[in-house]
Amino acid sequence: MTASAYDWSSTLKGFHDQAWKSLARGVADRRAAARHPTLATVGLNGGAEARTVVLRAADRTDGMLELHTDRDSEKVAELHANPAASLHIWDLRVRMQIRLRVLIRCHQGALATERWQQVPSVSRWAYGGNPAPGGLIHRPTDYRADTDVDRFMLLLCTVQSMELLHLAEDGHRRALFRRADGFAGNWLAP
Amino acid sequence: MTASAYDWSSTLKGFHDQAWKSLARGVADRRAAARHPTLATVGLNGGAEARTVVLRAADRTDGMLELHTDRDSEKVAELHANPAASLHIWDLRVRMQIRLRVLIRCHQGALATERWQQVPSVSRWAYGGNPAPGGLIHRPTDYRADTDVDRFMLLLCTVQSMELLHLAEDGHRRALFRRADGFAGNWLAP
Repeated sequence: MTASAYDWSSTLKGFHDQAWKSLARGVADRRAAARHPTLATVGLNGGAEARTVVLRAADRTDGMLELHTDRDSEKVAELHANPAASLHIWDLRVRMQIRLRVLIRCHQGALATERWQQVPSVSRWAYGGNPAPGGLIHRPTDYRADTDVDRFMLLLCTVQSMELLHLAEDGHRRALFRRADGFAGNWLAP
Repeated sequence: MTASAYDWSSTLKGFHDQAWKSLARGVADRRAAARHPTLATVGLNGGAEARTVVLRAADRTDGMLELHTDRDSEKVAELHANPAASLHIWDLRVRMQIRLRVLIRCHQGALATERWQQVPSVSRWAYGGNPAPGGLIHRPTDYRADTDVDRFMLLLCTVQSMELLHLAEDGHRRALFRRADGFAGNWLAP
């Protein structure tokens, strides 16, 4: 086998490394694919819901990811009822799909206070306002943006498993890495 | 108010029109954002799952979308257990998020036979193979791609509601269009 640009997915370790590289890049670079994962949750009516979120932190050592949200958004109510969610990323640059099954804890304690200090003042209006996100209004501009630190909430995501698919030119590769076995990984049929 | 590139989301009708334009473009143009929605489902263990799919057809008149899949993929088992799913698209070109709540029917009847005739022969290997997608294998290449017309399945998606968010420069706009009221639409706080 000759070396190629696709060698990173030829071993479980290389595959797993690449996924965390994509996640770290998402935190650091606002134009990277992993900056904007799709968060899937189970909705209050029992069906699946999905929306774009912003990846704020990724910690490989603990297998943790962090998102920020408005406490009064519907996804918080959904996560209180069912914390088993997924984050999905399609990283075109490396032709890799990342599917993260996560358990999400909604948090407003000391860590949130610390993070709030790092939120640029021009971005703080995203937390607060009236009516809350998703509230019915008569005209498109019938809402008041506002800043309310009490509405700032962290979503702390513990990665339970990470499923990767690489659409390599010399054949698709798919693998599953589970917390239960220390993320050692298994190959799957793609 | 002066005319601007963002006028399309200043009325409910214009907003709704733009979403169906994005969907139609996804069917016609493989590089369009709506070509590759994220499909969110409720997994067999009760948590949310998400993966990329390919949008194959979009019919505004009936409010229907169509996807193709391998009958033996996990999402089919999930949809049999719970057909209430979501399709999610972030269309960067127009800075619009499209969230479609859909009911999905898995179909292998006459329409599937008709659609199979339109699947290019180079793409038919995506339906079939052993082990089935997601099956455990020892090495990354321990699977045999194959074509099996009996594994070709349509996912017929009936749009129950469509929630749109436009990140316009002069203010975010958000609206919900529901089948229950003929997709007339309501504004929501963004």
